[in-house]
Amino acid sequence: MSRFESIALIGTGRVANQLGHALLEQGETISGVYGRNSKEAEKLADKLDSRVIENLSEVIQADLILLTVSDDSITDVSRLLNSKNRGLVAHTSGAVPLSAIEGVKRKAVFYPLQSFSLDKQVIWENVPFCLEAENDADLNGLGDLAELLSQRIHVLSSEQRKSLHLAAVFANNFANLMFELSEDLLAKAEIDRSILHPLILETANKVLMQSAAVSQTGPAARGDKKTIEAHRALLGEGNSYREIYDRLTNEIYNRTHEQKL
Amino acid sequence: MSRFESIALIGTGRVANQLGHALLEQGETISGVYGRNSKEAEKLADKLDSRVIENLSEVIQADLILLTVSDDSITDVSRLLNSKNRGLVAHTSGAVPLSAIEGVKRKAVFYPLQSFSLDKQVIWENVPFCLEAENDADLNGLGDLAELLSQRIHVLSSEQRKSLHLAAVFANNFANLMFELSEDLLAKAEIDRSILHPLILETANKVLMQSAAVSQTGPAARGDKKTIEAHRALLGEGNSYREIYDRLTNEIYNRTHEQKL
Repeated sequence: MSRFESIALIGTGRVANQLGHALLEQGETISGVYGRNSKEAEKLADKLDSRVIENLSEVIQADLILLTVSDDSITDVSRLLNSKNRGLVAHTSGAVPLSAIEGVKRKAVFYPLQSFSLDKQVIWENVPFCLEAENDADLNGLGDLAELLSQRIHVLSSEQRKSLHLAAVFANNFANLMFELSEDLLAKAEIDRSILHPLILETANKVLMQSAAVSQTGPAARGDKKTIEAHRALLGEGNSYREIYDRLTNEIYNRTHEQKL
Repeated sequence: MSRFESIALIGTGRVANQLGHALLEQGETISGVYGRNSKEAEKLADKLDSRVIENLSEVIQADLILLTVSDDSITDVSRLLNSKNRGLVAHTSGAVPLSAIEGVKRKAVFYPLQSFSLDKQVIWENVPFCLEAENDADLNGLGDLAELLSQRIHVLSSEQRKSLHLAAVFANNFANLMFELSEDLLAKAEIDRSILHPLILETANKVLMQSAAVSQTGPAARGDKKTIEAHRALLGEGNSYREIYDRLTNEIYNRTHEQKL
């Protein structure tokens, strides 16, 4: 059990659902759930052995108040909280600074870095937790709580977390776009997309072993202009695939070339 | 054992090494090894319980002659082979058509789709084999051989294999570049790159379950312009990170928007 005898959840979305269940399983007490949609709040409160918080302005009986609301709502929701709340108020967002929480006694960030689905079970022990607080006592409290779920605890400033969030867009959304473009090319050639799955897994597994710069292979890294020209001819001109191919091939070529100088 | 009573390897690089060992382990006979560098050829022949082929123009005693040479050399090397060779001549390249093999009786393609390292052990059962031949007998023979190593056997035309090779550049080299850019951003913010490893694995695992288009998340897919503007401001102007961020954000935004129409 953590130092927080009771935890309140503000929000009923994916993070509230997944985090609420995981904390309950670890013996934590979810003392209240608030949602704009009262039906959703009741449903989640039921599941979490908790009660519904009817109004954000009531005094919330909790040592920790987790704001699992959308990034844009964090400031507004924090302003609506009763100033008599005794609990530490922490948001769970990667992109939003600590200072976005306003009008509360103590604020913090409790950010689990993962893309959450409503249906898919989260493997919590693999989820990095990024923590920020205004004092060591609160930081340690959040650290204890995060350690119930994961061994990957990071203390990051708001500035660092902002960079991390941007880096995650490259590593997750943009890498996924590359997989999407490759699936399109396979579909056009009437090849089942599963053919690339082993290579995709290998690509991901390799960066766990060594830096991506070291792992890079392929025609651009080799400077194999003949293959690059064949690829460009196959893609044709004036389409997204070709534009992205040219831009990224250039980038890899320049990087590999610079390294060799 | 396959239908090929003996197999010769032309080339002493990564594919020759890895494939040679794997086939030997499955009880196949490697009857000869040729390399431009005779020391390398001797070394590999020793390891594979084989003998060195001194000259490409000698008659090679093998039912299958695997050309594991660089893409650019396939045509030249095939022309140097003795026309009295009885064996099926197959290259192992993804980017090169069947027709690049010249001056031999029977030609084929035996392409294992994976990025090979000299040091890292290949998990063969996960490697898709892409086969092409001029007749069913040769195709079946290569299919039996590939099945010794893997259950992922695909029969692809030269045109399809060319598209596959291009798709693999997106899924492997370009996705890896995204990981590289994210590592740079983390390094700049003094955050250990391992923090993104769970997310990278999750990203790869997700596309095994469902198409990448369905998996897409993040600010561009959500149309979250505020976060996108914050990212752009953080990246600054006139650098590769920003240019690639803008291009790929646009692409995801357009794709998600089109889907919703």
